[in-house]
Amino acid sequence: MKIVVLGGDKRNIKLAELLKDDGCDLQVFGFDKSEVNSLIFSENLYYAIKDAKIVIGPLPCSDDNILLNTPLYSENIKIDEMFEYMTKEQIFIAGKISDEILKKSKLNNILSIDLFNREEMTVLNAIPTAEGAIQVAMEEMDITIHGSKAMILGFGRIGKVLAKMLHGIGADVYVEARNYADLAWISSYGYKPVHLDKMTDLIGEMDVVFNTIPSMIVKEEILLELKKNSLIVDLASKPGGVDFEKAKELGIKTTWALGLPGKVAPITAAGILKDTIYNIIEELGV
Amino acid sequence: MKIVVLGGDKRNIKLAELLKDDGCDLQVFGFDKSEVNSLIFSENLYYAIKDAKIVIGPLPCSDDNILLNTPLYSENIKIDEMFEYMTKEQIFIAGKISDEILKKSKLNNILSIDLFNREEMTVLNAIPTAEGAIQVAMEEMDITIHGSKAMILGFGRIGKVLAKMLHGIGADVYVEARNYADLAWISSYGYKPVHLDKMTDLIGEMDVVFNTIPSMIVKEEILLELKKNSLIVDLASKPGGVDFEKAKELGIKTTWALGLPGKVAPITAAGILKDTIYNIIEELGV
Amino acid sequence: MKIVVLGGDKRNIKLAELLKDDGCDLQVFGFDKSEVNSLIFSENLYYAIKDAKIVIGPLPCSDDNILLNTPLYSENIKIDEMFEYMTKEQIFIAGKISDEILKKSKLNNILSIDLFNREEMTVLNAIPTAEGAIQVAMEEMDITIHGSKAMILGFGRIGKVLAKMLHGIGADVYVEARNYADLAWISSYGYKPVHLDKMTDLIGEMDVVFNTIPSMIVKEEILLELKKNSLIVDLASKPGGVDFEKAKELGIKTTWALGLPGKVAPITAAGILKDTIYNIIEELGV
Amino acid sequence: MKIVVLGGDKRNIKLAELLKDDGCDLQVFGFDKSEVNSLIFSENLYYAIKDAKIVIGPLPCSDDNILLNTPLYSENIKIDEMFEYMTKEQIFIAGKISDEILKKSKLNNILSIDLFNREEMTVLNAIPTAEGAIQVAMEEMDITIHGSKAMILGFGRIGKVLAKMLHGIGADVYVEARNYADLAWISSYGYKPVHLDKMTDLIGEMDVVFNTIPSMIVKEEILLELKKNSLIVDLASKPGGVDFEKAKELGIKTTWALGLPGKVAPITAAGILKDTIYNIIEELGV
Repeated sequence: MKIVVLGGDKRNIKLAELLKDDGCDLQVFGFDKSEVNSLIFSENLYYAIKDAKIVIGPLPCSDDNILLNTPLYSENIKIDEMFEYMTKEQIFIAGKISDEILKKSKLNNILSIDLFNREEMTVLNAIPTAEGAIQVAMEEMDITIHGSKAMILGFGRIGKVLAKMLHGIGADVYVEARNYADLAWISSYGYKPVHLDKMTDLIGEMDVVFNTIPSMIVKEEILLELKKNSLIVDLASKPGGVDFEKAKELGIKTTWALGLPGKVAPITAAGILKDTIYNIIEELGV
Repeated sequence: MKIVVLGGDKRNIKLAELLKDDGCDLQVFGFDKSEVNSLIFSENLYYAIKDAKIVIGPLPCSDDNILLNTPLYSENIKIDEMFEYMTKEQIFIAGKISDEILKKSKLNNILSIDLFNREEMTVLNAIPTAEGAIQVAMEEMDITIHGSKAMILGFGRIGKVLAKMLHGIGADVYVEARNYADLAWISSYGYKPVHLDKMTDLIGEMDVVFNTIPSMIVKEEILLELKKNSLIVDLASKPGGVDFEKAKELGIKTTWALGLPGKVAPITAAGILKDTIYNIIEELGV
Repeated sequence: MKIVVLGGDKRNIKLAELLKDDGCDLQVFGFDKSEVNSLIFSENLYYAIKDAKIVIGPLPCSDDNILLNTPLYSENIKIDEMFEYMTKEQIFIAGKISDEILKKSKLNNILSIDLFNREEMTVLNAIPTAEGAIQVAMEEMDITIHGSKAMILGFGRIGKVLAKMLHGIGADVYVEARNYADLAWISSYGYKPVHLDKMTDLIGEMDVVFNTIPSMIVKEEILLELKKNSLIVDLASKPGGVDFEKAKELGIKTTWALGLPGKVAPITAAGILKDTIYNIIEELGV
Repeated sequence: MKIVVLGGDKRNIKLAELLKDDGCDLQVFGFDKSEVNSLIFSENLYYAIKDAKIVIGPLPCSDDNILLNTPLYSENIKIDEMFEYMTKEQIFIAGKISDEILKKSKLNNILSIDLFNREEMTVLNAIPTAEGAIQVAMEEMDITIHGSKAMILGFGRIGKVLAKMLHGIGADVYVEARNYADLAWISSYGYKPVHLDKMTDLIGEMDVVFNTIPSMIVKEEILLELKKNSLIVDLASKPGGVDFEKAKELGIKTTWALGLPGKVAPITAAGILKDTIYNIIEELGV
């Protein structure tokens, strides 16, 4: 089966390499600024797309709904041109496909699938994110994770995986959550459940706090309770959940760690993309 | 705060004892066939209910929507009479409150809360259920759980807790699930994910299979693949998920384990009820 | 390679079946009181031993140094006769070979190997012992292991495996030990270390106590501290480590669980024998 | 109780701070090149030692048996002078006390205790060592530890703790050992045992190899089997266990990580010293 990868960052190059290693008839286009060995560069967009079963775009797909995101390409790829060359037998897979791009896709009778809507991808991405958060904490702390007191704010995907790993290294794991069902899960997994109301009482004992909640939760009154030599690792996407200025003022070490999968484990991140694409292919019976 | 427990089985007696130990002003009614020490029996239903903040009924509440379930009472308690004695300041808490009972409750301006709708209770009940399933497997198997190959069908509440415990004892844990997100979770937890399609291929290697799915999944074609000395533990509520007759014919050991929490750990089961009731009280700000 | 199994209990029969399943040229002798299918019974001791590379005896080998232990045989096997038929190319493997039997073995130029001196066997036997102890505790307790407080006395082989399994199910695990290195190991594994001096202070909080130390440790002053509804599981070989009479007087539930591997997991126990015998064969380069 | 810390590196300063925080009457001497707040510097060696119960020296104690190791002191401390000022009621505690220093100690009737002989210290130091090794691996690898194949060579203190942590993060853990008892332990803990003979067959599948054995084990024939993008982390003290030159030639990434506790977790390392000193004090009944 022919697959083509169009533009994107290093993760897409790694993805192309992994697909090639698996024996796919692989072509890439839109990477002239990067060294890519052992891959077949297409000479132009038309030939790249021709006969491919799957067309893989960037993550995220586009900033302006006109051009694909091609940070490693000295020219550019127009989305309209891409859809023009595609046929209704082909499938377009990319990340964060906007409504406008989706509309263009439908007009051309092309099935488009957004990777960011695939729950298995977000679940699997929690693994490199959690592991990256632990690496950051190891680098920043003067004590071991083992035997330290760590509180995680939020028990979503990242909170769940992070709690398991911290516990696996030997930390004393506290998890803050709001509803009783989550608190029940937290205690069933052997962590210490912390109801939002009790968080302020306990946070002063922590050596490290990991935030996964994308709203201002670690604000002044929480920061005032924290030990001076504690560490805050914010994993929440923008606008983040920590009052960084106040923390600085109080002398509390903070780090805002975003995009960890691509940074700490680019091959794992590309492997997750690959597995998700295979799942899509299997579901569609392509 | 005065709390009254009206009828129900041994679990409700244990619950009453735990509430009493916590210092509640506790009364019970509807247990003359059971030995209950150190509790204050009310002389009649009216006095039992009078001044109570919380009225706790049986789990399940009733079989006929007319009488409370009172297996340990030589007479009976009419639901209409109970609501008549209650005031709108009081709260009725029981298990599986039918629409008809709920209607009566509303007519009398009484707030009724169904324990079976409390997610934290179903989560916490997964713990004694999973542990009971392991006890059953230990009793029935000639090999240790440690080092055995165990497959769990379904990754809901019980599946999750059971997988963690089996893994914690040292089993080689396989979990069957249908959707890719669940399969991603399964592998992120360190178990071996088994897509429904692959189940038949792998099930022949298993020493024990735990079913948590309440529909006929372990049918003839699956049973034919199983090792002769393997064990099937069915945890699914009626109608269950195993073709028991066929299994018997094939000489495969099966056991259908229902209502495990009350059987293997009655005090834990009562403690879960108590915690859930406390959560309700806290949420309502009673 | 021909192997012969001479006498012993059911574990030796299972062992013979496992060796047969692996393709050994297997013969048995000394089991006329038991149903043994699919095995070749030798007609007499001479033919049983003839041409065998390995002669496997009972565990323990003998009670009187004259006859092999043959509880499943209506006649008996004389040790002197056995050695007389053996040649110096053959190896005798059994459990607890006394100095006197060893002397006879040497006189006949036969290499004898005592299974009870094989450390890997005692390590592996800790697994079914620990799992059996957990099964016993599950059966005797009204609460779940998960969330219970469990103290293990001693951090030898059984203590180590039991601690890991209890922790894996979700118990709050305390381990008593005497020296600081063991206490360091206990805390490095994430359990709560209890120095012998502090044991009396903490034991009153426990739901279950597992003793692995073969000397009187759970004596009156300890029993007096225990909760009335707590459970003691004694795993220590004779004379055991619990004052059972005093415990009974105080109404504390106790159970003395010996020989668990053969009882709770006979096939696993036989498999451990088999693996140990294979290790011996490999080491000797037979 | 008065305690004095004489010379040593940053770990000894951290140790002094921790002892001070615990309320000891603490004095230090031999640190003029370092910023040490909130501690009472003694003006001279005589007053530093006078009335102290415990005199803590450097780790290691001395390079030449004449002077204490005082990298943070612009002058020097003579061992003879130190023992001269000490009385037989005082105890000298340091690391790696040579026979010659021990002789001097005895001549002055001083009890000297070598921290490196304390097994609990070496056990506890395995924790920051293992965690540091994981941090190094996370930093050097393009994939996550979770889901990777990791082999540990040796199952001593560091091997045991490292295996547990890697397993806790979700790696597929293989452990190489030589004797059957260790291999039994490895499998009882849920890791994959690898007999030295089978190591060459399996090592080619590994993503990361951690060596804990202080002799040349990862030599050319092993290196030739390794994947090109695998990582070797050598934790063995000099002379190490990896042929680093050959590895470089073959393009295999290696890192030789020594002295990890002091580097990755200086406060934990100092805390381990402190706990060990407290154990010594308790044992001696000072």
